Amino acid sequence: MENEVIESLNTEGNNPRSRDLDQMTSQQIVALMNQEDQAVIDAVHEAQDQIGRLAEAAYQALQAGGRVFYVGAGTSGRLGILDASECPPTFGVSAQLFQGVIAGGKEAIFKAKEGVEDSPQAGQEALQAKGMTAQDIVIGIAASGRTPFVLGALSYAKEVGASTGSVSCVAGAKVSSLVDFPVEVVTGPEVLAGSTRLKAGSAQKMVLNMISTAAMVRSGKAYQNYMVDLKTSNQKLEKRAINILKALIHEDIDYKALLEAADYHVKTALVMHKLQVDRAQAQAELAAKDGHVRLILENR
Amino acid sequence: MENEVIESLNTEGNNPRSRDLDQMTSQQIVALMNQEDQAVIDAVHEAQDQIGRLAEAAYQALQAGGRVFYVGAGTSGRLGILDASECPPTFGVSAQLFQGVIAGGKEAIFKAKEGVEDSPQAGQEALQAKGMTAQDIVIGIAASGRTPFVLGALSYAKEVGASTGSVSCVAGAKVSSLVDFPVEVVTGPEVLAGSTRLKAGSAQKMVLNMISTAAMVRSGKAYQNYMVDLKTSNQKLEKRAINILKALIHEDIDYKALLEAADYHVKTALVMHKLQVDRAQAQAELAAKDGHVRLILENR
Repeated sequence: MENEVIESLNTEGNNPRSRDLDQMTSQQIVALMNQEDQAVIDAVHEAQDQIGRLAEAAYQALQAGGRVFYVGAGTSGRLGILDASECPPTFGVSAQLFQGVIAGGKEAIFKAKEGVEDSPQAGQEALQAKGMTAQDIVIGIAASGRTPFVLGALSYAKEVGASTGSVSCVAGAKVSSLVDFPVEVVTGPEVLAGSTRLKAGSAQKMVLNMISTAAMVRSGKAYQNYMVDLKTSNQKLEKRAINILKALIHEDIDYKALLEAADYHVKTALVMHKLQVDRAQAQAELAAKDGHVRLILENR
Repeated sequence: MENEVIESLNTEGNNPRSRDLDQMTSQQIVALMNQEDQAVIDAVHEAQDQIGRLAEAAYQALQAGGRVFYVGAGTSGRLGILDASECPPTFGVSAQLFQGVIAGGKEAIFKAKEGVEDSPQAGQEALQAKGMTAQDIVIGIAASGRTPFVLGALSYAKEVGASTGSVSCVAGAKVSSLVDFPVEVVTGPEVLAGSTRLKAGSAQKMVLNMISTAAMVRSGKAYQNYMVDLKTSNQKLEKRAINILKALIHEDIDYKALLEAADYHVKTALVMHKLQVDRAQAQAELAAKDGHVRLILENR
């Protein structure tokens, strides 16, 4: 019985519902995986208080001038890079603000590197190479909760005085005892035993999305539920920018001209129109309110 | 009313549940996002027949000697690379078998590239550079269902005679009419309007995980629900390999020695022990049964 409990909490355990996986049709495999993916939502739900605390800590670090470092190996490392790389186009922030650090470096994104994840020293060195400081927050991502690369990075972060967090997928994870803000999303055994790229990976992705979205929204990057700090770098984004302005302004004006006058920055365009000011004045208003559009529009 | 229906089906629509996102605490944002993520599971469930057909088509392409190309821009492109990069360590296959193609090339993984996703020609050229042939399957990934880079790649794939599929997150997606095996996972408006890295991205990840897992399991890469084609490249994987052997053999033997004798290949070790043969014989048995361990062990 106790063994069963441990198995059910362990990402490496065997999933009794998938014992005949190798005899299933593609349809059956897909249906089973979808059923199993329900556990992702439920596990994230169970951990939502922990996630909220870590997201708030990330926001606080950014407020203090720090950066967010996601550190992981393999799939966990790739998911950190994924989330970090989406922040500049979504929120109009520098690529320095959220950074993904993967064991083995950039090349490991495409090709698993042998051995690197087993080295705590490599984890420390990767953060040193990024110039991590006490203002930053380092978030270790490890499905198993015990990747040496990640543990090494977090020990170094603590030594430097940075804030620390973790996202793991087992109960009582080793990494949790090391950090200020642990998150344990217990997704259980995978349909393919030990393949933590599946449920564990999906849970990690959702948690990182929550951390970056909450931290950025709290930093004033949204107005209502619109990405008003959007930078338009392609057709889709320009169309989206114009749609956001239309939805928030509701008037028959030349939106393309407004966006252009605002140097393609949605937030500036919105303030220019709402306050009927020019670009420089809109930028000054935004700077004075630390970018929070609601504070500008509702305090008039 | 009709407008509301369209909004609710559109990834760019406004989500009425998140109108006050910019006034929420981190805890509230996390809780709301978790509620919204339930829609990911439900939308994938709705699409599971389509996903099963696409996964089976991917398996058939691999059986015919072809490869799987995931093609996308931005987050969609990164998710293709994520899934593809996990196949070699999980299934012991060549990195050629599953390949992720992203608009803007490798550098676009870290930094959004301006404009590239708007070019159908660039999509075609990216596949030409990979030497895509009629044996391959090309799976376009596009939350909006209309990314020009992806449409261009798929048109070229059809021209060459390759099998085609798509994963999009809107109903009646433009890309669906272009391909043999469309998948539409309708995740609805995001908490941050148009931020398809969130629910749409999570759904895409889950669908790609299903495609690669089903195609690989059908190809004989699993025995029961164990990854028996695992290659051990680090401590964690060596431990996992030994655990898999223990679980499948249940005897008091020297597992480390067995794994070593099998040149660290789990499947070979399993057949060596079960049939009491040497490595060369085990490899010959596996070759004769196209790698399907169950066919070897149950036909004796």
